[in-house]
Amino acid sequence: MDSEQFRDAAHATIEDIITYFNNIPNQRVLPTVEPGYLRPQIPSSPPESPESWPAIQADIDAKIKPGITQWQSPNFMAFFPATVTYPSILGEMYSAAFNAPAFNWLCSPACTELETVMMDWMAQALALPNCFLSTSENKGGGVIQMSASDAVATVMIAARERRVHAQAKSEGLKEGTEAYEDRVMDLRPKLVALSSSQAHSSTAKAALLAGTRYRSIAVSLENDMALTGAELRCMLEELDGKGLTPYFITLCFGSTNSCAVDRFAEILAVLKEKPAWRQIWVHIDAAYAGAALIADEWQYIAQDFADGVDSFNVNMHKWLLVNFDASLLYVRNRHDLTDFLDITPAYLRNPFSESGQVIDYRNWSIPLGRRFRALKIWFVMRSYGLSGMKSFVRKGITLGETFADLVRSRGDLFEIVTKPVFGLTVFRVKAAHLANGNGVDVNGVIVKPDEKADAVTKEVYETINARGEIFITSTVMAGIYAIRVVSANERAEEQYIKRAFEIILRTAEEVRGKWKGL
Amino acid sequence: MDSEQFRDAAHATIEDIITYFNNIPNQRVLPTVEPGYLRPQIPSSPPESPESWPAIQADIDAKIKPGITQWQSPNFMAFFPATVTYPSILGEMYSAAFNAPAFNWLCSPACTELETVMMDWMAQALALPNCFLSTSENKGGGVIQMSASDAVATVMIAARERRVHAQAKSEGLKEGTEAYEDRVMDLRPKLVALSSSQAHSSTAKAALLAGTRYRSIAVSLENDMALTGAELRCMLEELDGKGLTPYFITLCFGSTNSCAVDRFAEILAVLKEKPAWRQIWVHIDAAYAGAALIADEWQYIAQDFADGVDSFNVNMHKWLLVNFDASLLYVRNRHDLTDFLDITPAYLRNPFSESGQVIDYRNWSIPLGRRFRALKIWFVMRSYGLSGMKSFVRKGITLGETFADLVRSRGDLFEIVTKPVFGLTVFRVKAAHLANGNGVDVNGVIVKPDEKADAVTKEVYETINARGEIFITSTVMAGIYAIRVVSANERAEEQYIKRAFEIILRTAEEVRGKWKGL
Repeated sequence: MDSEQFRDAAHATIEDIITYFNNIPNQRVLPTVEPGYLRPQIPSSPPESPESWPAIQADIDAKIKPGITQWQSPNFMAFFPATVTYPSILGEMYSAAFNAPAFNWLCSPACTELETVMMDWMAQALALPNCFLSTSENKGGGVIQMSASDAVATVMIAARERRVHAQAKSEGLKEGTEAYEDRVMDLRPKLVALSSSQAHSSTAKAALLAGTRYRSIAVSLENDMALTGAELRCMLEELDGKGLTPYFITLCFGSTNSCAVDRFAEILAVLKEKPAWRQIWVHIDAAYAGAALIADEWQYIAQDFADGVDSFNVNMHKWLLVNFDASLLYVRNRHDLTDFLDITPAYLRNPFSESGQVIDYRNWSIPLGRRFRALKIWFVMRSYGLSGMKSFVRKGITLGETFADLVRSRGDLFEIVTKPVFGLTVFRVKAAHLANGNGVDVNGVIVKPDEKADAVTKEVYETINARGEIFITSTVMAGIYAIRVVSANERAEEQYIKRAFEIILRTAEEVRGKWKGL
Repeated sequence: MDSEQFRDAAHATIEDIITYFNNIPNQRVLPTVEPGYLRPQIPSSPPESPESWPAIQADIDAKIKPGITQWQSPNFMAFFPATVTYPSILGEMYSAAFNAPAFNWLCSPACTELETVMMDWMAQALALPNCFLSTSENKGGGVIQMSASDAVATVMIAARERRVHAQAKSEGLKEGTEAYEDRVMDLRPKLVALSSSQAHSSTAKAALLAGTRYRSIAVSLENDMALTGAELRCMLEELDGKGLTPYFITLCFGSTNSCAVDRFAEILAVLKEKPAWRQIWVHIDAAYAGAALIADEWQYIAQDFADGVDSFNVNMHKWLLVNFDASLLYVRNRHDLTDFLDITPAYLRNPFSESGQVIDYRNWSIPLGRRFRALKIWFVMRSYGLSGMKSFVRKGITLGETFADLVRSRGDLFEIVTKPVFGLTVFRVKAAHLANGNGVDVNGVIVKPDEKADAVTKEVYETINARGEIFITSTVMAGIYAIRVVSANERAEEQYIKRAFEIILRTAEEVRGKWKGL
């Protein structure tokens, strides 16, 4: 493909993307394809000879689009949003063109340096404490990761190493000796990573990757599924009693199930109670809800992170207008990463890296190579301005409040399970009208597990997704089967959230009616 | 940015990319910026109000391009190539637009299914044994990873878990019990990951991530830095003697230093000698050189992988025309990954995943979310056709042979250190004219360590990169300081490799003259 052909192909692609975006609201949010739909439509072997772009592009329409789940649809209310915007696409175009697997500074200084500046811009935009700035005296800083899952895996592994090396050194052992290696090996099996039961599964997976034990701490609906200091203390004492070593904890700033916010101040105070507990690495997973920090009225939350927090993670690719991947990971002390992730063979040595004046981000993450992801962040922040980003996040929160009010307005049918927050509403369908139903009203009363309500809610959920007018998620927490609704992508609007409520209402009445008749 | 503004901005971006690509040969391959060049040019805080695209785009020219290392330059002969092509950029455009963090099938069936089909296309294109096809009876298959480093980390962790769980189960312990957990924890510290000293540093880093021991096996110039069966046997016996458990080995198909190819057949035979050795996970790292398999004349190498190889990795983003990231990881048995990487909380459950009919690639990798990277592979394979891809790889090999012949033609100045292969030539500057120099001719004679030659070669290397006409890499192996030259990106041409040789020749004469005069 020469430059003339590329120009034509790229123009055609741009028109196709614009048309695609304009039509999204009219598309079914969930595709209707069956597993295995694609393979029969594609030749079983790669072509021997080149094909022209029009032939390739035609297949996008015919074969790919029918299999796309429309995350940009205003009817997408599942999981959390994953937004793409036009300036973000421009960022990906330049990033691809500048293709440089910038594993060290020299391999594209612009790639590394823009990343550092953008991480600082975002730290300011989110009002994070200064300790996370690259310019901080404590040697903090940020790095772009692919996702919250590799972010937590990276810091958990760094935490594991920090803990066992500190211990081995405190015992007078000398690094590089056999005795040192043996001791480090003996210490790791005692380590335990922690989180509340509401943390995203990526923390449990990170512990699996790190090869350490993992314990999930039960939380309760009484506390809106937030982890409390008392619950943590209880777990820490239990582990101490067993001779195990808690070394890492993920705290939720917006849990996946219900956007619970763990009680940071309380928990950080507990962690100061014993010297061994002070060594626990504290990671804040704010993958989705952390975006709210861009709005001034939420920034008070980040004040708790000024002391005792080792790392903080938020995904711009969820609620901050940058397409996947753009997961921001901040650490209080970059040496916590580089001391343990830096392996520098001869072919990676160069005068700039040796001087210590530059950042080599390969030592801040699992992969060696990296894409130029800071560009899209730069483009989005400048195209929207902070004012535009704040308005966008506030719109999502307002839509969530609108939806929660609609749910509350039909207390005969629904009950809210956890306090709606950050645009997310978690609720279930009541089954009080059924013989054994014991659903209760939402006014301050804790929702209790109820098999009938579970069954009805599940059927409502499955019916809605099968019909595909809207796409929602269900979950189970505190023994309760619930539906999650969050509408916060760029195309979200009040009309769609109202329509979604109508669909849920209609389906709930239909299912309840059916059950009553049984 | 609305769709009209996007169209204008995207058209301007396309023109800028075309101009940028056309001008690359005239650009300095290494930027001249100093560490910290960018920060003073960018506002210290993000803008409050939106900015227009022309203002943003102007900054690309002014601030970003001066800091880009030109991996696409025909004068880029460092590391290994990292090529981007026009169809690959189109793939990134569509991928961004279809933005779906497709962690499971339902979250965009097209994303998952095209990935499976493309991995099969590439397995065929590379003539990999059928066991790596997704349609194989042994449940093999491929997955796109970000880089060879997360690929090796992923399989090493899977190997660690496969080994310890198999052992715990063989002892009659029951999964889910405390005794089982304790036993698994006790087994991990005995594990040792292996590779030759020539394997990429990502294997040592993966062992660090996995928290297991790592041993590097010394290899020799006599065997062209390839690992032999005898060398491996010797290490395995030593570990057995110490009561340690070798569980993983990376074998090089094109080592980073010199493109060494480990002696697969010999090594696989050794691994069959003892039952415990048969359990060792064998991973082939073919990150760069694996691309050569696309050319029929190299495909015989892959025949060795039909039996005894657990995983194989090649990066399309190096030498196969797809921009970073596109690292292909194949496994013989997908359950080796999914048995240990699958953590499925309630909110990720759906009827399709539960049915087992679909692939959820999140269980094949470390991150949960994933980009739609199969599109760019599809576009590149169709735009070039297999014929175009083969020609491209053959061109790189031919250019390498041309360069090696030029080096050989000046046996008075240079000596080749390892057999040139896959486009890479590794050589040093002779210092025989200096009092203590003992450099020897290349005709079948092994090059010996020589401090003077090291010093002269290092100065030649540093002078060349400082001048920035071409960008090359140096390395140290078998105690020898050497220069690596490989020219295999899309703009590589004979005129540039000849000019590079002239620059190297001129600089070598200059440096040698200076040293002689001292």
